[in-house]
Amino acid sequence: MRGILIKGNREKAEHFIREVKGKEPIFLCVIGSSEVGKIPGISAAGKNPEFTDYTPPADVELLLYGKCKCISGIPVTPEGIPTPAIITMSALELANIPVFIVNGGVRVKPHVPFIDLGGTHGDDIRKGSAVANVEEVIERARLVGKMFAKSSDYLVIGESMPGGTTTALAVMLAMGVDAVGKVSSSMPSNPHELKLKVVNEGMKAINIRFGDLKNDPIKALSHLGDPMLTAFSGLILGAGEEVPILMAGGTQMAAILAVVKAMNDKVLRNLYLGTTRWIVQDRTSDLLGIVRQIHDLGILVANLNFSPSKYEGLRVYEKGFVKEGVGAGGAAIAAILKSRGKITPKVLFERIERNYERLIGI
Amino acid sequence: MRGILIKGNREKAEHFIREVKGKEPIFLCVIGSSEVGKIPGISAAGKNPEFTDYTPPADVELLLYGKCKCISGIPVTPEGIPTPAIITMSALELANIPVFIVNGGVRVKPHVPFIDLGGTHGDDIRKGSAVANVEEVIERARLVGKMFAKSSDYLVIGESMPGGTTTALAVMLAMGVDAVGKVSSSMPSNPHELKLKVVNEGMKAINIRFGDLKNDPIKALSHLGDPMLTAFSGLILGAGEEVPILMAGGTQMAAILAVVKAMNDKVLRNLYLGTTRWIVQDRTSDLLGIVRQIHDLGILVANLNFSPSKYEGLRVYEKGFVKEGVGAGGAAIAAILKSRGKITPKVLFERIERNYERLIGI
Repeated sequence: MRGILIKGNREKAEHFIREVKGKEPIFLCVIGSSEVGKIPGISAAGKNPEFTDYTPPADVELLLYGKCKCISGIPVTPEGIPTPAIITMSALELANIPVFIVNGGVRVKPHVPFIDLGGTHGDDIRKGSAVANVEEVIERARLVGKMFAKSSDYLVIGESMPGGTTTALAVMLAMGVDAVGKVSSSMPSNPHELKLKVVNEGMKAINIRFGDLKNDPIKALSHLGDPMLTAFSGLILGAGEEVPILMAGGTQMAAILAVVKAMNDKVLRNLYLGTTRWIVQDRTSDLLGIVRQIHDLGILVANLNFSPSKYEGLRVYEKGFVKEGVGAGGAAIAAILKSRGKITPKVLFERIERNYERLIGI
Repeated sequence: MRGILIKGNREKAEHFIREVKGKEPIFLCVIGSSEVGKIPGISAAGKNPEFTDYTPPADVELLLYGKCKCISGIPVTPEGIPTPAIITMSALELANIPVFIVNGGVRVKPHVPFIDLGGTHGDDIRKGSAVANVEEVIERARLVGKMFAKSSDYLVIGESMPGGTTTALAVMLAMGVDAVGKVSSSMPSNPHELKLKVVNEGMKAINIRFGDLKNDPIKALSHLGDPMLTAFSGLILGAGEEVPILMAGGTQMAAILAVVKAMNDKVLRNLYLGTTRWIVQDRTSDLLGIVRQIHDLGILVANLNFSPSKYEGLRVYEKGFVKEGVGAGGAAIAAILKSRGKITPKVLFERIERNYERLIGI
């Protein structure tokens, strides 16, 4: 299919394309926030660390209203580069794909309707403390997943979770997935050492080593995870036996994959990964190398190209800024597939550029 | 269609049946609570007035989990008669219809996932104070309705709102619908005088008379309504231009009809009412007489019959106890229609009786 590159297991990815082409997906965006996002240097999802609490609600306000409510303007990195939610919003809008927000646990509630799972803002994993009520949140997310599986042909699930690659790294190391130096970052200079330092402090705080929690994903999420990973895993556990799911994101998806594999490997056959070319071409991370350790997944890659943009804020995506987030790659893929290719990467790009102009006020 | 009686506009009701037979609905249950539910003698949705705060969360826990979590047992009237949520749960279960909970504003949050609209528990309308942020809740509910309209062939919307017929009466009188002595009750001895006294106090508190708010539904809801009426109206405003909606309930539905008619009469062509035989046969209320004043609606009536039941708690439905609630009638109709009549009232009754046995612990 034009505009979609294939990685990972080619046969599975092509099967997914055949199966869902022209069908009706529902897009879910899982949000969470945590104290990890506020460790200086960890996250670029917000113009400064304290601001990261506002990024997930602002992202989903953008998806539902086409503008933010809890902040003026839109979320940007410290360099002023706009949130990938612009991509997601443009894709969902063009393909008329319904979107629901699932709140895994945030400090700042979005000014839009959201599905509440009783989850709370995540703690600082350096203390060995992350998510208060993992089992309860997973149980509720499972029910939500089950209901959405009955209401759609397939699901596309994205996320907004500042600091999320660090908690993903922590969960993966605890569960025996070698992701050191391999998780992605919204910054081109990926702060691997800082992330690993944070993770090591957390593992030390609960006295575990690499792989010790291989069969205890609940403990891994409770002490080293985040609200998004928790809720996202629950959604997959609830829906994954019934319908195909396109996990829309970068290396955080691998942590979710490890969790759900440990909890119910029957869902694996329905899972696919949807991401952006900027992620798979990134030399500072290794999505494919992580995923391969967990499961032989079909991976679909949205072949977006921002180099023709009139705007520096979009052109820099080609230089490795931002790269992915808020399910941008998966939403683009879903728009292409739902329209049977009528929505091309070029059509997407033009809409993204128009939305960018409107939102930045050019 | 066997098991469904028709009232109101026959042609429209038959059109609905033809249009949605075999199709895939989504069931939404809107919950709310208020201080009105706690006025002694107003509501039988709870074994005592203070308990009414627990009835909506317990009802929706039953729908999603098949058992209550926030209380032991299930909601009952002061006489010990079980909640109509048993009917709804049985119908949705049999027909495999997805259900989502929409929280209009409750004091006690359910232990299940729910869609949050930023609404709060309703006040006491005797003070002329009811819902804090009507416009915000309607706006968010509208978005939710829009998304569900994209995800399903049609919607069935029910409610759990103790004291709800009193606030419905208040909104209708404020908006010029003569509902005096005509709203329903979960008690066979309908406390019309008490309800009217409460409503009159509220109208006096804000210095209005019958019909003064005919064109101001926002004000009617703010001062005399409840969180359920508010959220339910918003859902219809969001979905009603796109898909058919079966409003599942009794006389409260008429208040919603008046509100949405005043806000956007284009949705009326997609609205239908689904209720129970116990409501339309009730001599203490007059659903058809109220609805007729607002719009010539197609009305579908679930012809359930509990007289063969082994259990007194179900047989008394035939004597006018409970009658309707939690979208029981509409859920039964949706189950019959989705199954193209394979699920008959008898099949429903048998499942209801089995669930009753399990829940009451017989």
